[in-house]
Amino acid sequence: MACCEFPAVAEGCDGAFTVDSSRITFGRGCLAEVGERAAALGMRRVALFSDVDVAGLAVFAVARDSLLAAGLDVVGYTDVHVEPTDVSFADAARFAQEAQPDGYVSLGGGSVIDTCKAANLFASYPADLLTYVNAPIGEAKPIPGPLKPHIACPTTAGTGSEVTGIAIFDLLSLAAKTGIASHALRPTEALVDPDCTATLPAGVVAAAGLDVLSHALESYTARPYVHRPAPARPSLRPMSQGANPWSDLGCREALRVLGQNLETAVHDAADSAAREQMMWAATLAGIAFGNAGVHAPHGMAYAVAGLVRDFHPSGYPPGEPLVPHGMSVIVNAPAVFRFTAQVSPQRHLEAARLLGADADDADLDDAGEVLAAELIRIMRAVHIPNGLSGVGYTESDITALTEGAFPQQRLLQNAPREMTKPVLAELFRNALRYW
Amino acid sequence: MACCEFPAVAEGCDGAFTVDSSRITFGRGCLAEVGERAAALGMRRVALFSDVDVAGLAVFAVARDSLLAAGLDVVGYTDVHVEPTDVSFADAARFAQEAQPDGYVSLGGGSVIDTCKAANLFASYPADLLTYVNAPIGEAKPIPGPLKPHIACPTTAGTGSEVTGIAIFDLLSLAAKTGIASHALRPTEALVDPDCTATLPAGVVAAAGLDVLSHALESYTARPYVHRPAPARPSLRPMSQGANPWSDLGCREALRVLGQNLETAVHDAADSAAREQMMWAATLAGIAFGNAGVHAPHGMAYAVAGLVRDFHPSGYPPGEPLVPHGMSVIVNAPAVFRFTAQVSPQRHLEAARLLGADADDADLDDAGEVLAAELIRIMRAVHIPNGLSGVGYTESDITALTEGAFPQQRLLQNAPREMTKPVLAELFRNALRYW
Repeated sequence: MACCEFPAVAEGCDGAFTVDSSRITFGRGCLAEVGERAAALGMRRVALFSDVDVAGLAVFAVARDSLLAAGLDVVGYTDVHVEPTDVSFADAARFAQEAQPDGYVSLGGGSVIDTCKAANLFASYPADLLTYVNAPIGEAKPIPGPLKPHIACPTTAGTGSEVTGIAIFDLLSLAAKTGIASHALRPTEALVDPDCTATLPAGVVAAAGLDVLSHALESYTARPYVHRPAPARPSLRPMSQGANPWSDLGCREALRVLGQNLETAVHDAADSAAREQMMWAATLAGIAFGNAGVHAPHGMAYAVAGLVRDFHPSGYPPGEPLVPHGMSVIVNAPAVFRFTAQVSPQRHLEAARLLGADADDADLDDAGEVLAAELIRIMRAVHIPNGLSGVGYTESDITALTEGAFPQQRLLQNAPREMTKPVLAELFRNALRYW
Repeated sequence: MACCEFPAVAEGCDGAFTVDSSRITFGRGCLAEVGERAAALGMRRVALFSDVDVAGLAVFAVARDSLLAAGLDVVGYTDVHVEPTDVSFADAARFAQEAQPDGYVSLGGGSVIDTCKAANLFASYPADLLTYVNAPIGEAKPIPGPLKPHIACPTTAGTGSEVTGIAIFDLLSLAAKTGIASHALRPTEALVDPDCTATLPAGVVAAAGLDVLSHALESYTARPYVHRPAPARPSLRPMSQGANPWSDLGCREALRVLGQNLETAVHDAADSAAREQMMWAATLAGIAFGNAGVHAPHGMAYAVAGLVRDFHPSGYPPGEPLVPHGMSVIVNAPAVFRFTAQVSPQRHLEAARLLGADADDADLDDAGEVLAAELIRIMRAVHIPNGLSGVGYTESDITALTEGAFPQQRLLQNAPREMTKPVLAELFRNALRYW
């Protein structure tokens, strides 16, 4: 479909799309509103979730002091595991079950917000962890009812978790990332304060920013909602419903903002305007992918992150090996978009143009190459490793990566072309090295 | 401010903006989802609001049958008054108090949706009508708590009421329009089915479409949120918070879509694609103005509609004289935008360009004139009367119109320039005749 028209509904497919979003407050300094907002939501005893690094920052004191000033009882949980696991989710849930808060505030990156969603869920509806986890890994049972109110306050311009109903974790027994996806998980409110990103190291800004970029690109190029089989009942329409006019709007604006600000935000921490714009792009892309869904680069990333051997990126906590989420996504992206471009070349060219590529005279047949080249240029400019080989993988890992990615059907089915195992293997092979 | 940057916060002004939106389902045929959605919201006894004309259309049967098929008990209220009054609001509230529904579905234009909001409010929290009405006309008391769930299903591409927390009515004793504005009034869900507009007469498509156009233009040119004095507490941030990056995005897209589809949608009822796009523009503009606010053209429109003497537009029910809402707005618009352009000429030019004007080489000093000329061209193309004189006003009405508009401070304070009585009088005078 072209960029801005309503596409025809394919036979047996869905004719409508549903848009949900949290209440969002955006602006420098707005984190100080958290106390009054928590009180307005009826909270009296608040669980404040964070991680050990964020807990040492000034922004943590801002949030805690605001909650205390509003007369709230605050119980802190700062043991969130970066890249959470089933074990760390269970620990957070135990804390919440014991602390019995009547509301939640999360302050951190995606790991913190996702852990808080899980704690809220399992304290509200205790169950085995796999009960609500996406099929085929989990049972994908519907969440029985509403959760306690949750105000999510992101400290990275990245995951968009503050506006989505998704919580991701590593299932250690399978060495695979998976997650829970439900409207019920979506935070009640998001407080998006760009000042929370002021102290982020360049490496984190780069990885998180490329996660945002891929949210926007994947949602923009996802299978259109009118090509997804209609659900048996409207309430079964998935959050990953495919590209739609609403998500398209957020995607295009996020790509434009990223093209103008990502490199500056990475290289100049003092440029608060660029970091403010990055936070805005993250919010827009979060709303978009929360209502459209990502596809292959994210599906493949779960395996890239899950099978990590000994990669230690700069800017992240030392110790355990880690491929940061955004990095694990973007290393797949050029290979994937070279493959998907033939389905919607205009969209791929438009995306490249919005990011800043000179694509005005490009031929539609070159759309995949033009977009891939722009992505590679940006990756190099912000010091992302050279594809899968740059984060420690070789040709001999292709089979394991493919087996790790293939179960991510919730994401892979949202791709515009069929993602069979041979296709995934070829994409991983093409993602090994870009320059 | 330029179109796409975060502006500097003026001293003592607000540094953040808050965005709220209903859950929205959009697509041809989605009205049939209303039964399952009502049941999912916990409704068992549903009040179905409509007006006598809509009640005779096929879409009414679609909604009613869907509710019945979901096993719900349906009580109908089809006495909604087009352009509701305090008397008609009170009648609807009495109905709701007696019927005791546990949820509401409204199917109609803005009059129906607004009346349903009022009935829900006064059945939930009985009070004198003026209790919650905007100051200075009413007491503007906060609504005490949440209302019953409400699914709003618009049948015009116009008011955007399905996604806003605003309900407008005529206060007969003052011959003035006023309203209630509260987050609590916002419908729980909106079901936006473009097929509901298939049978609308051209005159209604034109008036409603120009209401949409003015929502987008006014929100785009409203006083920026960073120039509005900061509220004492964040929860007091008004819905009319001024232009912000979120509303800007919806406004620009709505203007682009309107520029490409309004005239076709008016003149060719069979062009379902154009009417679908109009519905989409109405939704985007509704979300935008629900979070930014309109200003002078709407504030002035309250007087234009309230003081009507003997105007009878084509396409509307015969009988009582009426200036349709969108018409009462757009007749003021060229005069207002000629006046406001000097504050943000780039935005005014950009708006003209998005609507389709050739403004690439225009000088910033000509921004107001370029936008006004484009509006006048569109008004003529869709057979809108020639300014205030076209709907029955003369120079001798200027004082009464000014006195009628001046109390609309909630809207006038959202304008980018101060709207004193002499300014309003001059704007009304300039709006008397455009060609």
